[in-house]
Amino acid sequence: MKPTTHLCTHNTESITVRGADLVDELIGELTFTEMTYFAITGRRATHAQTRILDAVLVTLMEHGLTPSAIAARMVYASTPESLQAGVSAGLLAVGSVFVGTMEGCAALIARILAATDGEAMARDIADEYRSARKPIPGFGHHMHKPDDPRTPKLFALAESQGVPGQHIAALRMLSAAVDERFGKHLTVNATGAIGALLGEIGIPAPVMRGVAVISRSAGLVAHIAEEQQTPSMRYMWELIEEAVPYEADSDTSG
Amino acid sequence: MKPTTHLCTHNTESITVRGADLVDELIGELTFTEMTYFAITGRRATHAQTRILDAVLVTLMEHGLTPSAIAARMVYASTPESLQAGVSAGLLAVGSVFVGTMEGCAALIARILAATDGEAMARDIADEYRSARKPIPGFGHHMHKPDDPRTPKLFALAESQGVPGQHIAALRMLSAAVDERFGKHLTVNATGAIGALLGEIGIPAPVMRGVAVISRSAGLVAHIAEEQQTPSMRYMWELIEEAVPYEADSDTSG
Amino acid sequence: MKPTTHLCTHNTESITVRGADLVDELIGELTFTEMTYFAITGRRATHAQTRILDAVLVTLMEHGLTPSAIAARMVYASTPESLQAGVSAGLLAVGSVFVGTMEGCAALIARILAATDGEAMARDIADEYRSARKPIPGFGHHMHKPDDPRTPKLFALAESQGVPGQHIAALRMLSAAVDERFGKHLTVNATGAIGALLGEIGIPAPVMRGVAVISRSAGLVAHIAEEQQTPSMRYMWELIEEAVPYEADSDTSG
Amino acid sequence: MKPTTHLCTHNTESITVRGADLVDELIGELTFTEMTYFAITGRRATHAQTRILDAVLVTLMEHGLTPSAIAARMVYASTPESLQAGVSAGLLAVGSVFVGTMEGCAALIARILAATDGEAMARDIADEYRSARKPIPGFGHHMHKPDDPRTPKLFALAESQGVPGQHIAALRMLSAAVDERFGKHLTVNATGAIGALLGEIGIPAPVMRGVAVISRSAGLVAHIAEEQQTPSMRYMWELIEEAVPYEADSDTSG
Repeated sequence: MKPTTHLCTHNTESITVRGADLVDELIGELTFTEMTYFAITGRRATHAQTRILDAVLVTLMEHGLTPSAIAARMVYASTPESLQAGVSAGLLAVGSVFVGTMEGCAALIARILAATDGEAMARDIADEYRSARKPIPGFGHHMHKPDDPRTPKLFALAESQGVPGQHIAALRMLSAAVDERFGKHLTVNATGAIGALLGEIGIPAPVMRGVAVISRSAGLVAHIAEEQQTPSMRYMWELIEEAVPYEADSDTSG
Repeated sequence: MKPTTHLCTHNTESITVRGADLVDELIGELTFTEMTYFAITGRRATHAQTRILDAVLVTLMEHGLTPSAIAARMVYASTPESLQAGVSAGLLAVGSVFVGTMEGCAALIARILAATDGEAMARDIADEYRSARKPIPGFGHHMHKPDDPRTPKLFALAESQGVPGQHIAALRMLSAAVDERFGKHLTVNATGAIGALLGEIGIPAPVMRGVAVISRSAGLVAHIAEEQQTPSMRYMWELIEEAVPYEADSDTSG
Repeated sequence: MKPTTHLCTHNTESITVRGADLVDELIGELTFTEMTYFAITGRRATHAQTRILDAVLVTLMEHGLTPSAIAARMVYASTPESLQAGVSAGLLAVGSVFVGTMEGCAALIARILAATDGEAMARDIADEYRSARKPIPGFGHHMHKPDDPRTPKLFALAESQGVPGQHIAALRMLSAAVDERFGKHLTVNATGAIGALLGEIGIPAPVMRGVAVISRSAGLVAHIAEEQQTPSMRYMWELIEEAVPYEADSDTSG
Repeated sequence: MKPTTHLCTHNTESITVRGADLVDELIGELTFTEMTYFAITGRRATHAQTRILDAVLVTLMEHGLTPSAIAARMVYASTPESLQAGVSAGLLAVGSVFVGTMEGCAALIARILAATDGEAMARDIADEYRSARKPIPGFGHHMHKPDDPRTPKLFALAESQGVPGQHIAALRMLSAAVDERFGKHLTVNATGAIGALLGEIGIPAPVMRGVAVISRSAGLVAHIAEEQQTPSMRYMWELIEEAVPYEADSDTSG
């Protein structure tokens, strides 16, 4: 079947995005966040949806000299005529290890929402991960202990906006079951909370990682802007060369 | 000299971005656009600056099945477990050919602003490009004729916000000189207008391309979301394979 | 624990790779393929290993206007000052859909090699995929029917080199079991055969995709060289814009 | 005009690359280096051309924990299901700063070859760079002093192969003029020498960077293979986080 696109068309006089005239209805009328929601979902965001999406985008933008930021600075300083290459390299690190848990947590929430008895399902999930000795997506944080400070703020904001609330309720249910079954408190981390919030505003799970990508693109531009003003790449490079010494293979005889 | 970073620090309880506490002062308080301006420049955006940056970000987000969108869909459908790879591939096309004119136009504006006699400088620039028979960055558009519809809207919005206005005034000056010296009307295109608007809100020229990258990252996520729902990659691939035939080299003898 | 690197060190007078002096022992002494094997494994390749790796690299280099080549051309023509960006975009498409089957097939071979009764294991694997109605990695091809022409040549070449031969034997065993259990012939495709050949020469399964990436990088440079001489990007772009029409959302009311 | 491709076509039974049957004429017959030359140029490489291209590819493959390798490891360890993303990120650093000088040097060689009096042109070029106080592409090295050890080996190898020799002669001419006009010895570095060697074997200047990209793709796969066996990413990340401290902006008041 012949595919079509619902995103954009244009002619000599106008550009139309999702049925709306770009010049007359969107530029100057929508914020970036409203436009993003509109472009991705085809629906106009409500005030509540916009505030939640803004909160998520603000949360994920910047976390210091992470692997993503380091990669971006390494590439940018090697090819300063191509700012976009630095951002692209950094975004490639927005992968399974750092934000993949968002979708994993959303999948657990979906299982709870689909169950007749949500609490029983939450306990089953907790047992499943405990016996498999696997980390639960959206739970735990290597640095923020005992609790990820972003999570209660994100929950409070979403709840103040009166969204349906089911996804957050399901994640709270899972959190209670996890603490009970593991016999200790595991924090719901920011990516877990965000998996619930994006579910509340109707972002499909396979698109959620895209929200992190958008947010990080802004963070990476900030890193590159800083690299332009106070170059750090060569310092970091020499630091690593010195700290990771060469060691000969025990045997390289031909 | 040992470099430092002004962007972010964190400890077990908190995350600090540009001196502000992420949880207490930024999440739920700033929009994405305000946060982006803050992260990049270190300054809180005024209402006017935010509205202008929003308008720019909305303008650049989506322009249909461009090379950038095609590259993103090709890569995403080849590696659907890595949404970020699709976005990265698409952003690599946000380069000199499509948005490089933004910085080029900003450089011309800077020359006019630095001149004692701006109008004379505008005429000099017009003459310079006319005799070199080179395209003027920020002028002309292969499709939007006689005028790029986005430009007057962007100018009007910025002027309604009462920003200093010097960059826009300089670009209008250049536009008048260009029409006079070339003896015909050349439209100021959207990237030209945006070069002026971003100058008005204090975005340095070498960072401007980053604003396009941020905006396009959202557009590319929308393309990938559409590709998830109605796959088009194989259709486009077969279309191209069929339309670009193989032709043997005239001589490949060993 | 503090990591080290076994790959390379250098000082003002010399560069040492894997314990060998680059200038005295490697440049002019090793072919690219021998150097690649040495860099990746730390071992000097035998003549047989070199011939097999060459055959694999030659096989995967070029397959026409694939998604990978299209992405590379889209990006290159948008940023012709950055040839490397075109190659990078194209390599991002060397993912699970197109070469992921290589590792998947290597994993099946490993299961057969680890079994006490290889033939029984081969039948178990065939039954497993048949009842799950899932494609078997390394089997079948959407275009090359009934048989992928590359496979017998790759097998013949490897066998002529007298490598241990266990991986190929295991794959032949699996092929026989698949044909028997599915009641029809399924071709062993080139990525399946390559999974076996790379196993024969001691390339670990998690590195196999890297061999495809190396080979494709050369193919993509060939595509970019052709794009430089006879630009095709705008033609392909317009082709797609025309063939994939815009369709308004059924409802975009705000 | 409708573009065509000279690279590859295929049908159910066969694959044809540059007019040659992949299975019957290329797999098992050509080395990777011969196939690469054939794919890029459409010509079969002579023995001399193959040896020179092999020497260049071996030279550029590996130089330790460079920005390119660091970026590749940062990305790979963040998304280990996508080896190709690590390589792509690393290749993005093969840009103007590190290998761009290859093309720059080739352009100077071309000017000398096109001049009636090559020696006079070489002196003009030296004067031009000296008065502009700009680095001469292909000359000088931040670490290899007084001479880059790779250059004499590359020259000797190429000369032993009896290629036309004009590009090397022109570069030697430029080197003499540079030393005379600058009043001190500046080494011809490896990228300079390679610019000459690739010219000798008929690789067009705009494709030369592609040769570096191909070679580095193999080096980056070796880095990723090492990262798989002895992970270093978190160590490097923590090293950088600690070494580049956060410093508050002097004023971030809203």
